[in-house]
Amino acid sequence: MAEIETFDNPYPERNYEITHVNPEFTSVCPKTGLPDFGTITVRYVPDKLCVELKSLKYYYLEYRNKGAFFETLVNQILDDLVAACRPRWMIVSGEFNTRGGIHSIVEVEYDASEG
Amino acid sequence: MAEIETFDNPYPERNYEITHVNPEFTSVCPKTGLPDFGTITVRYVPDKLCVELKSLKYYYLEYRNKGAFFETLVNQILDDLVAACRPRWMIVSGEFNTRGGIHSIVEVEYDASEG
Amino acid sequence: MAEIETFDNPYPERNYEITHVNPEFTSVCPKTGLPDFGTITVRYVPDKLCVELKSLKYYYLEYRNKGAFFETLVNQILDDLVAACRPRWMIVSGEFNTRGGIHSIVEVEYDASEG
Amino acid sequence: MAEIETFDNPYPERNYEITHVNPEFTSVCPKTGLPDFGTITVRYVPDKLCVELKSLKYYYLEYRNKGAFFETLVNQILDDLVAACRPRWMIVSGEFNTRGGIHSIVEVEYDASEG
Amino acid sequence: MAEIETFDNPYPERNYEITHVNPEFTSVCPKTGLPDFGTITVRYVPDKLCVELKSLKYYYLEYRNKGAFFETLVNQILDDLVAACRPRWMIVSGEFNTRGGIHSIVEVEYDASEG
Amino acid sequence: MAEIETFDNPYPERNYEITHVNPEFTSVCPKTGLPDFGTITVRYVPDKLCVELKSLKYYYLEYRNKGAFFETLVNQILDDLVAACRPRWMIVSGEFNTRGGIHSIVEVEYDASEG
Amino acid sequence: MAEIETFDNPYPERNYEITHVNPEFTSVCPKTGLPDFGTITVRYVPDKLCVELKSLKYYYLEYRNKGAFFETLVNQILDDLVAACRPRWMIVSGEFNTRGGIHSIVEVEYDASEG
Amino acid sequence: MAEIETFDNPYPERNYEITHVNPEFTSVCPKTGLPDFGTITVRYVPDKLCVELKSLKYYYLEYRNKGAFFETLVNQILDDLVAACRPRWMIVSGEFNTRGGIHSIVEVEYDASEG
Amino acid sequence: MAEIETFDNPYPERNYEITHVNPEFTSVCPKTGLPDFGTITVRYVPDKLCVELKSLKYYYLEYRNKGAFFETLVNQILDDLVAACRPRWMIVSGEFNTRGGIHSIVEVEYDASEG
Amino acid sequence: MAEIETFDNPYPERNYEITHVNPEFTSVCPKTGLPDFGTITVRYVPDKLCVELKSLKYYYLEYRNKGAFFETLVNQILDDLVAACRPRWMIVSGEFNTRGGIHSIVEVEYDASEG
Repeated sequence: MAEIETFDNPYPERNYEITHVNPEFTSVCPKTGLPDFGTITVRYVPDKLCVELKSLKYYYLEYRNKGAFFETLVNQILDDLVAACRPRWMIVSGEFNTRGGIHSIVEVEYDASEG
Repeated sequence: MAEIETFDNPYPERNYEITHVNPEFTSVCPKTGLPDFGTITVRYVPDKLCVELKSLKYYYLEYRNKGAFFETLVNQILDDLVAACRPRWMIVSGEFNTRGGIHSIVEVEYDASEG
Repeated sequence: MAEIETFDNPYPERNYEITHVNPEFTSVCPKTGLPDFGTITVRYVPDKLCVELKSLKYYYLEYRNKGAFFETLVNQILDDLVAACRPRWMIVSGEFNTRGGIHSIVEVEYDASEG
Repeated sequence: MAEIETFDNPYPERNYEITHVNPEFTSVCPKTGLPDFGTITVRYVPDKLCVELKSLKYYYLEYRNKGAFFETLVNQILDDLVAACRPRWMIVSGEFNTRGGIHSIVEVEYDASEG
Repeated sequence: MAEIETFDNPYPERNYEITHVNPEFTSVCPKTGLPDFGTITVRYVPDKLCVELKSLKYYYLEYRNKGAFFETLVNQILDDLVAACRPRWMIVSGEFNTRGGIHSIVEVEYDASEG
Repeated sequence: MAEIETFDNPYPERNYEITHVNPEFTSVCPKTGLPDFGTITVRYVPDKLCVELKSLKYYYLEYRNKGAFFETLVNQILDDLVAACRPRWMIVSGEFNTRGGIHSIVEVEYDASEG
Repeated sequence: MAEIETFDNPYPERNYEITHVNPEFTSVCPKTGLPDFGTITVRYVPDKLCVELKSLKYYYLEYRNKGAFFETLVNQILDDLVAACRPRWMIVSGEFNTRGGIHSIVEVEYDASEG
Repeated sequence: MAEIETFDNPYPERNYEITHVNPEFTSVCPKTGLPDFGTITVRYVPDKLCVELKSLKYYYLEYRNKGAFFETLVNQILDDLVAACRPRWMIVSGEFNTRGGIHSIVEVEYDASEG
Repeated sequence: MAEIETFDNPYPERNYEITHVNPEFTSVCPKTGLPDFGTITVRYVPDKLCVELKSLKYYYLEYRNKGAFFETLVNQILDDLVAACRPRWMIVSGEFNTRGGIHSIVEVEYDASEG
Repeated sequence: MAEIETFDNPYPERNYEITHVNPEFTSVCPKTGLPDFGTITVRYVPDKLCVELKSLKYYYLEYRNKGAFFETLVNQILDDLVAACRPRWMIVSGEFNTRGGIHSIVEVEYDASEG
């Protein structure tokens, strides 16, 4: 996978929230081989490190031709981002386009103080 | 009824939320025999099992020519989904199109820790 | 007044919420004799009885040529619905169209456990 | 019927267009006795006379408890307004709320130069 | 098929336009057996006859469990409505929900003066 | 100032909420002499008295040619309304149109139980 | 009245269109003395002169405390603007807020080549 | 490339219009190698053949990892569809997401009667 | 000024339309020195050359700290683009944010066949 | 930097909230030198001083040609505003336009009682 780069949080003494919304996420359904489309939103409170935006974009591109279920994919993105920037708190949510008349949302939360 | 299939939750150690929205739900009014239309939304925190999306679609199709009141129908869907996947928490809501100038919403919640 | 009919709550052991939205409510201003228009929304948790939708519609029709202030009217609807179905909890709100450049909302709550 | 009053067109030498939109129109379905709701829009080019707004409002109120099919009603309003103000050109359209899942629009045009 | 009923055009001497919009149309895909959903809009200038709204609704219900391609279905509805009410002019359009990520519109026109 | 009239609360034994929204508020900027435009919203729980709607409209008209800063104006309206109807609780908010590319909101709360 | 100032059209050899939209227009109803609110839109093709924006704003302010019917007011604004800048073509339209449940639009056109 | 399949037009004696909208189109920028996203809309009047929807979807998938400029891509899709179904008339338009703060639309028309 | 680059039209034998929308345009008011913001839209039919998107973006950036009236600016952009790519037809329009409560649109057209 | 001016809070004995929204914020990306665009929203509870609106506008203008990362910029604005008016509580949020397909939000809070 492309590495998620980080930079030093310029205000580490303060709790504040950063959100990055990517409405151009696409991956491949592992069952049918057909593409899925969706919006991935990351909200987090940085600790020592912030996520670098351009590397985040390249990280998402890795999913373009990769098969993954919605539930696995959103959890995986959370794990990778937590590993990269060690935030105080983070939510990743994925809203996926209609397939067979049903559209789906998966939302995963991480809280450093819990665990 | 069509069986609601499940698959193993890939991240059972974590509480996270899955939502499936079906804006193409239709059933039949038991009084008039005329069709009702609505949107059924399922939100849940999986425990050991996740709901398989394609079987959920076929499950909804069973209501297409079946008579049911809104209040019964939404409770029934909750019961069937809870029986199938044993979630930690689940909400089912149904928003139904205007009939006689009035539109209706029914929302039912299940919490495994309460029961 | 037309009687608000009820039917037995099919799931009385469970707390769940029912909402009926009527965007075609009309009454008459007692001061000017001119019609008022608005949306009446009823949200409630049924106990033993649910409100029957068709009789609710006929109940609203009774206001069509009746004079009533917004504040009185919304409270009156709550009282009538509570008397008819004895819910665990209910909110009635009325959103009324612009009169003299100002539009108004009245919202009343009933909680069986409080009173 | 309430009389539609008029006033002298202040700029009769010029062709210009006046539109009055009434989103609070209501009448009664002659089949079911139940109320219908809709928006009536009148667009016209005045000749010697303009429609007085307050009398137009009272004219619409006459339909409140009167039974009329959509097709008849919109044609009738056009006829009454043409008789009252003799415009150079006029369109009346009625957009009616959903009944039985279907909503309807009726639009009628009058052109003095054709008739 | 259910018969499309008509009533006498109350203003046959005048060209005017009637529109009926049905956002609750559903049929079955002849390939997959799965339901399709869409909105059928009929616009026409009546000649001697108008389409009766309730019978139109029952006519649409006939498609609920019938297999038909979009292109065939919209042409068929036009043919049936033209046969029933012999309009001066008519357009039927069908807007169908997303299937496989693509949504489709079919629009067919009839003009009595051309035929 | 025009007097804000009141009438007896028809349901004083019950806590309920009344909202009046005026999107046609205008005053004058004390610095530039140019008009300001905005929406004033009043939400309150009445005690013994309700605000009479027509007098509220005339009260707002007093600001039409009067200079006042946003911060002062919204606090002043709250004070005047509290003095007139002695509510259990009230919020007044003013949302003002863009001036110099920036638009502003001021929101003030009153709680009888705190004071 | 405040004078409508002009400046030399920088591209007089070319036909092009300029639009100025003022959503903060207010005048006074000559019947009731109550304020009216609306949006005035001016679209024109300049000839030798363009309308100066700041003086247009001050021109509109003159209506703030002046009584005028919608029909007269929009025609008057057209006349004043045509007199000031002698355009090749101009449309003035006024969209006025709901009064008595009805909102109104008046649109007037001027064409130098016709007059 | 995946072949665009066709089926016999069920109503070849009539001119009617078919539209297929694909909001999930993606290709690759030939300069940067980064993905582009957009909506491709095809409107056409069929002659002897209609475009088969599923094969159209697979045709679009061919662009997923292919580099192409917007201008070339939309013209190419028109050429391929015209070759496949020989329509009487066709428009293809592509609306592409923001790149560098600018979003772009390309629209190409084909008319059999002109060529 | 930054040069507007071009590339060879890949389909010069065909008339087709290209649109580039820039919602992030900003310049400086020559009177007040304060920034103006707006959306510049370019629609054109290319002849031998197409406008290169990245150089268009840099061209717009030149206006960031430059004073220009709306009327001059939109005409200037048209002239520069016509000089660069010699289109068959082009429209440039600028929609500018509210200044003093009024927002403005300027739209200029070029047609090679007329000039 | 331009000084942020203040004026005496006219109601210092009361907690109330003031919001200023600037949808015309622009700065420069320190990496690429290209402009960024966004909306800066300030919400605060004043203590002894309120922020003067015109000086706030001039303060924002200082960022027009200055390079700053989103995370730094929003924190810096909070620090400058807190230093200027010593509020009881303040939130600053910046919502920035899409860059590389991703848009970002940064939100920072200050609470005098915590610090």
